[in-house]
Amino acid sequence: MNTANYGIRTVLDLSFDEAVERTKNALKAEGFGVLSEIDLREKLREKLGVEVEPYLILGACNPPLAYKALLAEPEIGLLLPCNVIVYATSAGQTVVAAVDPEAMLSVVGENVTVAEVGQDARARLQRVIESLKALSPADA
Amino acid sequence: MNTANYGIRTVLDLSFDEAVERTKNALKAEGFGVLSEIDLREKLREKLGVEVEPYLILGACNPPLAYKALLAEPEIGLLLPCNVIVYATSAGQTVVAAVDPEAMLSVVGENVTVAEVGQDARARLQRVIESLKALSPADA
Repeated sequence: MNTANYGIRTVLDLSFDEAVERTKNALKAEGFGVLSEIDLREKLREKLGVEVEPYLILGACNPPLAYKALLAEPEIGLLLPCNVIVYATSAGQTVVAAVDPEAMLSVVGENVTVAEVGQDARARLQRVIESLKALSPADA
Repeated sequence: MNTANYGIRTVLDLSFDEAVERTKNALKAEGFGVLSEIDLREKLREKLGVEVEPYLILGACNPPLAYKALLAEPEIGLLLPCNVIVYATSAGQTVVAAVDPEAMLSVVGENVTVAEVGQDARARLQRVIESLKALSPADA
């Protein structure tokens, strides 16, 4: 598994539900609203009849950053919102990972404003993950 | 504006609402369900009090492809679903653009299965955009 290049992650000794709640609170503290919430386990069960561990995809958006990026690049919606995933492992831990916005937005090409937004969003999401780590360090 | 490297797009002589409906139908025909729907205009109005043209971000997911990718790469949820945007231009046209899943999934690094999923999803989204173009060619 290769996640270092596109995600920022931590492993927590928390139940899935508790991790979801804390992740939402941590996102809020950094100015991110959750614009979408996809229960991937439920979807795969419903559509394919398969069973996977609990797995949630949160679409996190910081409105001032999104607006700044949109003015600089009308099709930035292709890369919004920033995904933050929470999933349970078979070992009883919970992983929280955020996409690296800087890596994602780099596909836009040369655009100073979009690059600035990516850096700002990345710093915020790193603080989100750090704050969760500080609460329950399982991989310290 | 530089979109060629991460999006597949078309410009339609259709109203925004009609373009949204046709886009959803075209996605369905290629096996994509819409897992999330973000009204970016409404969100920016609500959170920042600013006005932009109608702008919708659809989260499109083909369940068999998503499941195949998930088994090969547990954190693929960071890159799911595939965004398809529909937005009105000030010139009275509507743009429909899909993210290029092959470009997005390439950030995962070397993973044959994920690369195959990306190719398959890309071919489907290209057919979605082509079918919309055929219905109402504004940029033919």
